[in-house]
Amino acid sequence: MSLVVVGSVALDSVETPFGKREDVLGGSATFFSTSASFFTAPKVVAVVGDDFPQKHLDALTQRGVDLAGVTREKGKTFRWKGKYSFQLNEAQTLDTQLNVFQAFAPKLPEAYRGAEYVFLGNIHPDLQAQVVEQVRSPKLVAADTMNFWITGQREALLRTLKRVHLLFVNDAEARQLAGEHNIVKAAQGILAMGPDRVVIKRGEYGALLFDREHIFACPAYPLAEVFDPTGAGDSFAGGFMGHLARVRSVDPRSLRQAMVLGSVMASFAVEKFSLERLQEISRQDIDSRYADFRRLTHFEELPHG
Amino acid sequence: MSLVVVGSVALDSVETPFGKREDVLGGSATFFSTSASFFTAPKVVAVVGDDFPQKHLDALTQRGVDLAGVTREKGKTFRWKGKYSFQLNEAQTLDTQLNVFQAFAPKLPEAYRGAEYVFLGNIHPDLQAQVVEQVRSPKLVAADTMNFWITGQREALLRTLKRVHLLFVNDAEARQLAGEHNIVKAAQGILAMGPDRVVIKRGEYGALLFDREHIFACPAYPLAEVFDPTGAGDSFAGGFMGHLARVRSVDPRSLRQAMVLGSVMASFAVEKFSLERLQEISRQDIDSRYADFRRLTHFEELPHG
Repeated sequence: MSLVVVGSVALDSVETPFGKREDVLGGSATFFSTSASFFTAPKVVAVVGDDFPQKHLDALTQRGVDLAGVTREKGKTFRWKGKYSFQLNEAQTLDTQLNVFQAFAPKLPEAYRGAEYVFLGNIHPDLQAQVVEQVRSPKLVAADTMNFWITGQREALLRTLKRVHLLFVNDAEARQLAGEHNIVKAAQGILAMGPDRVVIKRGEYGALLFDREHIFACPAYPLAEVFDPTGAGDSFAGGFMGHLARVRSVDPRSLRQAMVLGSVMASFAVEKFSLERLQEISRQDIDSRYADFRRLTHFEELPHG
Repeated sequence: MSLVVVGSVALDSVETPFGKREDVLGGSATFFSTSASFFTAPKVVAVVGDDFPQKHLDALTQRGVDLAGVTREKGKTFRWKGKYSFQLNEAQTLDTQLNVFQAFAPKLPEAYRGAEYVFLGNIHPDLQAQVVEQVRSPKLVAADTMNFWITGQREALLRTLKRVHLLFVNDAEARQLAGEHNIVKAAQGILAMGPDRVVIKRGEYGALLFDREHIFACPAYPLAEVFDPTGAGDSFAGGFMGHLARVRSVDPRSLRQAMVLGSVMASFAVEKFSLERLQEISRQDIDSRYADFRRLTHFEELPHG
C-alpha cells in the first residue's frame, strides 16, 4: 500500500475564460496526493515556505495524506501564475517564482524508503534520480517531465529515464523527447530510452498506454464544461498510481483500470478551480464515473456470418 | 441490404511527405462504396467524364458495387489536387476542377428508390436534398459535409439537415457548424438542427458518436505509418453504413459496431495511396483488426472493496 510522491506544493494564480483565482492551492504533489488519497495513503516529499497556509496542510492530513516528508523553510512558497486561452489545451506561464523550491533537495524520511510505488513529479531530473536512490526496492517508479527539462536538461533526463519504469508525458512532449512526429514511433522511441511503459496524455482526446507489446487507448470523459485544466495531469497520475498501490499489482488488467481511474480523476479535477472539485467528490462519484467510462467505450463482438 | 451512396468519382493528384501520385482513383463515392463492398452491395449515384478509365469502373463492379446510377457525360472527370504536410491532419487543396460534376443532378434509377440506407457524400446540400426526395422510405439517411458548405451554403445545409438522421463531420467542422468550441456542446448544437445522431471524426484521435442520450468513443487505430489520409472519412462512412445495411439495424449495439468498423476501414485506407490498400485487403483482415480494437480498448470492472 505504500506510495511516495515527490513534487511541488505551490500557490497558483490562474486565469481561464471562466474566471480568475489568486494564490490558490496548487502544485504537482498536491494534485497527485489528493487524487491518490481516494485509493491509498500517499506519502509526500515537498517543501513549503513560511507563508504557506497551515489549513492547506491540515486538509491534506485529514484526507490521510502523510506529510512527514514535507518541510517548511524560511522564505516564500513556490508560486506559479498562468493563463488559459479559450482552447484550454495549454497554459501560458505568466510568472514562475521558485522561492524555497530553488534549494529543494528531496530527503525521504526513513518510513518512506520501503515504498513500493513512487511517483516523481515534474521537477529537475537530477532531483528525481536522488529520490530513486533513497527508495530500497520499488515495484514501480513512474515519472512526469515537461518540455523545459526535455530541452534544457536532456542528458540528466535520459539518465533518470534509465531508472524509471513508467513515464507520463503529453503528446507534444513525447514527440519532442523522441524526435518523432508519429505518436506510435514516439512511444517506441521513449521505450528504447529505458522505461517499460509510457503513458501519453492527449488532453481532451484521452490517453494511450504503451508497453513493448500492447497499446491501451482510453478516451477522455466528454465534458461540456472545462473550468480549469491546471493539475489534470497530476490528478491523472494520482488516480493511476493510487489504484496500483491499492491493488499492489502492475499486471495488465490493473494497469488498464489505472488508466481509466486516471482519466476519471483528471475529469473531476478540471470541473472546478484548483483542488475544489477533488476535495468535494466521494469514492462513489469515482465509481459512478468509472461505470460511465465502461458505457462510453463498450462495444460487442461482430455477429457471425 | 440496400445501401445507396451519392458522391463524387474523381481523379486525384496527391502529394504527401511519402510520395506523390497523379490522376489516381479518388472521390467520396469511390472510397465509400469500396469500403462498404465488404459488407453489402452498395449502389452508386455519380457522374464521370469521357476521360474516366473504364478499368476503374470494372474494378468496382467486380467488387459487387452497383453502378447503374453512374452516368458518363461528355467532358472531363472531376479532378482534385491536394497536398499533405508532415502532420497529415488536413489537406491543402491545390486545385479543384469540377468539370462534369458542375452540372451533376443526381437521379436515382428506379431500383435504387427502395433503399433503406442512404449516404449523402460531401456535395452541395441542395443536391443531397434532391436525393432524399427520390428515396421512398429510408431507415437511415446519413450525410457528410464540409467547411465549404457550412460557410457558403449554410441555409441550404440547415434545410438538408432537417431531413437527415445522422451527420458525419470532423471536429473543426462540428465547431464551425454549431458555433461552439466545446465538442460536447457542438454535438448538442448539431442534434438540435435535426439529426438524431452525429459522428464527430477526430483523425488520429478517433471518433465520437452522439445521440440525445449517449456518447460512444472509439479510438483511431494507432498506426506507425500513415501514407495518405485521402478518403479516410469516406472509408469510415462506408464501413459504418455498410455494416448497418448488412445487419439491417440501427440499434445501439449495431451503431457501436459500425463505429468500430468505420475506424477499421479508415485505418486501412490511409496505409497506402488512393484505393490501393482497400483493394487488397480481405474480410479476414477486417475481422482481425476489429479484434485488435477490442484489445486496444478493453478494460475490466474494478475489484470490490
